[in-house]
Order: sequence, then structure tokens, then C-alpha cells
Amino acid sequence: MSEQIEGKKVAFLVANEGVEQIELTRPWEAVEQAGGEPVLIAPEAGTVQAFEHLDKSDTFEATRVVADVDPGDYDGLILPGGVANPDILRTVPAAVEFTRSFFEAGKPVAAICHAPWTLIEAGVVDGRTLTSWPSLRTDIRNAGGEWVDEEVHVDAGLVTSRKPDDLDAFCEKAIEEIAEGVHAEQREATVAS
Amino acid sequence: MSEQIEGKKVAFLVANEGVEQIELTRPWEAVEQAGGEPVLIAPEAGTVQAFEHLDKSDTFEATRVVADVDPGDYDGLILPGGVANPDILRTVPAAVEFTRSFFEAGKPVAAICHAPWTLIEAGVVDGRTLTSWPSLRTDIRNAGGEWVDEEVHVDAGLVTSRKPDDLDAFCEKAIEEIAEGVHAEQREATVAS
Repeated sequence: MSEQIEGKKVAFLVANEGVEQIELTRPWEAVEQAGGEPVLIAPEAGTVQAFEHLDKSDTFEATRVVADVDPGDYDGLILPGGVANPDILRTVPAAVEFTRSFFEAGKPVAAICHAPWTLIEAGVVDGRTLTSWPSLRTDIRNAGGEWVDEEVHVDAGLVTSRKPDDLDAFCEKAIEEIAEGVHAEQREATVAS
Repeated sequence: MSEQIEGKKVAFLVANEGVEQIELTRPWEAVEQAGGEPVLIAPEAGTVQAFEHLDKSDTFEATRVVADVDPGDYDGLILPGGVANPDILRTVPAAVEFTRSFFEAGKPVAAICHAPWTLIEAGVVDGRTLTSWPSLRTDIRNAGGEWVDEEVHVDAGLVTSRKPDDLDAFCEKAIEEIAEGVHAEQREATVAS
């Protein structure tokens, strides 16, 4: 086990249903392998029903409720995808505020697949460059973001990828950004938008 | 059976998986009861897997492939929801072009729940007023639309509703608009945007 992010707590924010399982489990393992502490946060405590594309897969246990957690306790945020997951999360005000607070603090955020919908809802996409599942391209551009088609894109603390096939690159860059800590440019871009 | 839309062909455009079943079947029955001819069109011929929320439900048969149909053969377009359905459709260029052509011709379009994502992709939301599943509110506003929280909203040939509970009002207004025929304002709004 490396000690790249030893002692750092990393928030995994998901809806109680709809998360793409491998986009939760692979970054979770990467955080643990790098010495960090992953914490599963959802709108409600208890069961998180994961999916493989549109088929139900395993369940996981959310140990924290997003409305009750202090973002100040976390060093980074990872947002897995799955089409229904951010579609639900973006309608939960506490989830949107929790997400935005990482940008306001300049802390690293990594979002994959459909997860950038939650970033759009948090109003943090304007002026940033990111990738996503291709269906979000127009929504990201309409929100003021620049959309690129890359395995992984890093923009001053914001790490984004397109799909499960990109997970190796996504996990590597997410850990790197969390290891680096606060990115002042991420804070400044959020305050300006 | 009424003869409100006797002899009119109505296109139902869906992805091959992910459509919210009741948002397909209820408007389909309403078209038939009003004397119209519904036609199920998808990116691929054959099976359409419907869902009830995130659970698989019945399958249906798409008899036309969207890339091969002439929108000129249809008098109106109905777009059911289901979170995965428009998320897939909007990535299929032929589906987006087919949808846009109804707006360019001023023909009636009815979209419910998550379906307005396909309208965003078709670039026909700017300057229009519509409702949707609440998660799309920000995407619709960012696309230049005005979002309202109503059971059904009619804007010159464009009928929108939020969810399955709104289906009575949605079907009634969809049939009314298709019965009225071409709406010049819909064509003009599309050309201007």
C-alpha cells in the first residue's frame, strides 16, 4: 500500500439508487490502496443499490447522510456515474450544496460518466474544461463549460472521465490531485462564476 | 372512438431500452382512441425494453428505424420519458435530426418527463416555455428555455409534462395540438433559434 494520500478522508457521494457499480468500487479501492479513507455518503443512510448499466447489481451501505456531513471534514470528493445516480442527486439540495462547497474550498473533485450533471446543478462548470459520457456534452457546453473527448482531463483540481473503460486513468489522476491538496485556481474559478 | 385525429400518423420515438412504459402506452392508447395511427420508431428495429422507474418491465416492437423514416410522413411526434431513454436517443444523430424536423415544420411535439433532453440536443428549446421532470430544470434554462412547474404546458404546438401522474392532461393536450395541425409559431421559433 502506498501512502500517497495517507490520513486523507475522501467523500464518495452517490444517490441511494442508480450508481454504476464499477465507478464506485474501483475508485474506492484506489483510495484505500493509496492510504486514504473513503466514506460513502448518500441522501439517506443505508442501502445504495448499484447497477451495471441498466441491470441491478450489488448493494452498498451509506454510512453518512449528505445533509448531516461537514464538507470541511473531507480532503476530496469523488462522484461516480450511472445515468440515474446524478439525475437523482441533482434534485437533492444538500447534495448540490455539498458538491459546490468542495469547489469553493478549492478541494479536488473527480467526476466520471454522467456525474458532471451534479456539477452543472452546483453551478461550477462555467469556464472549466471537462469530459463526460457523451450525452452530457451539450448540457456542459450550455452551462458554460468546454467539453473535450479524452480518457481523463485534469483542470486545476477537477478530474473528469467518460466511462468505465477510462477508470485506470481516472483513478490515477484523482489520487494525484487529492495528494496535491487544495488548488487555488479551483477556488478562484468558482468564486468568479 | 372519437375521430379527433382520424387518418393522422403519430411518431413515437424511443431508444431500444429505458423508456418509461406507462409514458409510452398511455399516449399510444390515447392516439388510437382519437382515431390516429401510432408508429413505434427507434434507433434499431425490433425490441424496445420498457422500464417502470429502474425495473425492467415489458418489451415492445419498434417497426421503423429512425434513420430510415421520413418525418414528412408523420403529423406529430410524441417523446416518452424514462431517464435512460432520452439519454441514449440524444447520442443518435438521426434521432436528433428527426426530432428537429418536426419543429422546423411547425408540427406538434409532445414530450414528457426526461424527454426534453432530446429537445435540448435538437437545439429547439431556446425561447420556448416548457416543463419536465425537475432534474432537467437547469439544463432547460441553460439551453435558453423558460422552465415552469405545471401538470402540462402548451407553447404553440409544444406540449410538455413532468411525470406519469400528469398523463391525463398530457394526453388530452397532445391530441388537441395534433388535431390542430401545423403551428406556424413553432416553425418560426425554430428558424429564429
